[in-house]
Amino acid sequence: MEKKLAIIATKGSLDWAYPPFILASTAAALGYETQIFFTFYGLQLLKKKLALEVTPLGNPGMPMPLGMDKWFPVLGLALPGMQAMMTSMMKSKMKAKGVASLEELRSLCLEAEVKMIACQMTVDLFDMNRSHFIDDVEYAGAAAFFEFAGESDICLYI
Amino acid sequence: MEKKLAIIATKGSLDWAYPPFILASTAAALGYETQIFFTFYGLQLLKKKLALEVTPLGNPGMPMPLGMDKWFPVLGLALPGMQAMMTSMMKSKMKAKGVASLEELRSLCLEAEVKMIACQMTVDLFDMNRSHFIDDVEYAGAAAFFEFAGESDICLYI
Amino acid sequence: MEKKLAIIATKGSLDWAYPPFILASTAAALGYETQIFFTFYGLQLLKKKLALEVTPLGNPGMPMPLGMDKWFPVLGLALPGMQAMMTSMMKSKMKAKGVASLEELRSLCLEAEVKMIACQMTVDLFDMNRSHFIDDVEYAGAAAFFEFAGESDICLYI
Repeated sequence: MEKKLAIIATKGSLDWAYPPFILASTAAALGYETQIFFTFYGLQLLKKKLALEVTPLGNPGMPMPLGMDKWFPVLGLALPGMQAMMTSMMKSKMKAKGVASLEELRSLCLEAEVKMIACQMTVDLFDMNRSHFIDDVEYAGAAAFFEFAGESDICLYI
Repeated sequence: MEKKLAIIATKGSLDWAYPPFILASTAAALGYETQIFFTFYGLQLLKKKLALEVTPLGNPGMPMPLGMDKWFPVLGLALPGMQAMMTSMMKSKMKAKGVASLEELRSLCLEAEVKMIACQMTVDLFDMNRSHFIDDVEYAGAAAFFEFAGESDICLYI
Repeated sequence: MEKKLAIIATKGSLDWAYPPFILASTAAALGYETQIFFTFYGLQLLKKKLALEVTPLGNPGMPMPLGMDKWFPVLGLALPGMQAMMTSMMKSKMKAKGVASLEELRSLCLEAEVKMIACQMTVDLFDMNRSHFIDDVEYAGAAAFFEFAGESDICLYI
């Protein structure tokens, strides 16, 4: 019988946007039936126009290029412009290394019939506008998601 | 047979306090037997008097109200008072939208017989005082939790 | 039949390095066959010389010793030296409380035959050098990890 992967995607930064789409597309390629439930900040991943950013603030695990952390100790990481710079560096690096963009990975997931569900409660909470989201999204609550998750072989909270 | 949900709750901020309680109460309402193992910063969620805060620092995925991020670029987010302000805004918003408070969600879980377990090792590590925690808590180690988690249908690390 | 635990370790800070190793060694002691897939910042946990740090920035859930947060409100937490100080305090505390060091926990996992897999894609992406990692590591992609995860009793994304 077909295996099932259920993902709860809760983060909305550039770096943490990759895992749900990479894991879902990989699983789908392996024949898994896959659903992603986007909730909290994860709803940012469903926007038509993705404008995600990454920050080194609060993440001492991030490898800093060119010894940047020596030149800009922690306080420097909070300087205006640093977040935009890290975002741009991460995007260039991904591209140079041949990693698909988030938009491409998301399309890949949709082509592979990964079902994407937006958490209706969070949409209401943040006053988000459905017209800002891509079309291939269903809107439902956590209870609906449990139907699938409860039968899944792997369920990940990301 | 009754389905089982096991949750490991490790975060102690206001925003990340919701997912364990929302998921646990939803699952319990659907008939799941549910246990939450509170460890690391997650122990903050068991305090009688919840004083959790939320910060936009290090989380570029947070939707900022009123274009606040335009007025206060990253460095501004670190200003004293910003964390208190975001915390107060999030609480008002939750209330205005009819989302139950954390205390209410936690009570709901307890009424639905969600079992709450505090990680004894972390309690010792942080020199936490059992008298600060709510009464309906058991104290155990990770090994005890695995007994339940190993039989669960869904196990989430939050 | 032997139970199976699959862990995806994605974080690279000192505090979040403990959960994968504590959970894996506990599970192994209980007879679980265990695999950890290290990806994104989690690859830092495989370095021969662990130089992980912890920061209170962006984590209002962290219990601050000695009311430090009263003396240094949020902006103060970004001061140069604060991250090093918190890192050193956390290490001393762990040691004083008899918690094994990360290096010890990692060795314990290896002795208990926990299989450690480094995500080849991330190694390439961050231009990491295999010679910096411990020897007992296999290199593979997410697809390979799914073979084990899909058969696991517990699968955690940390």
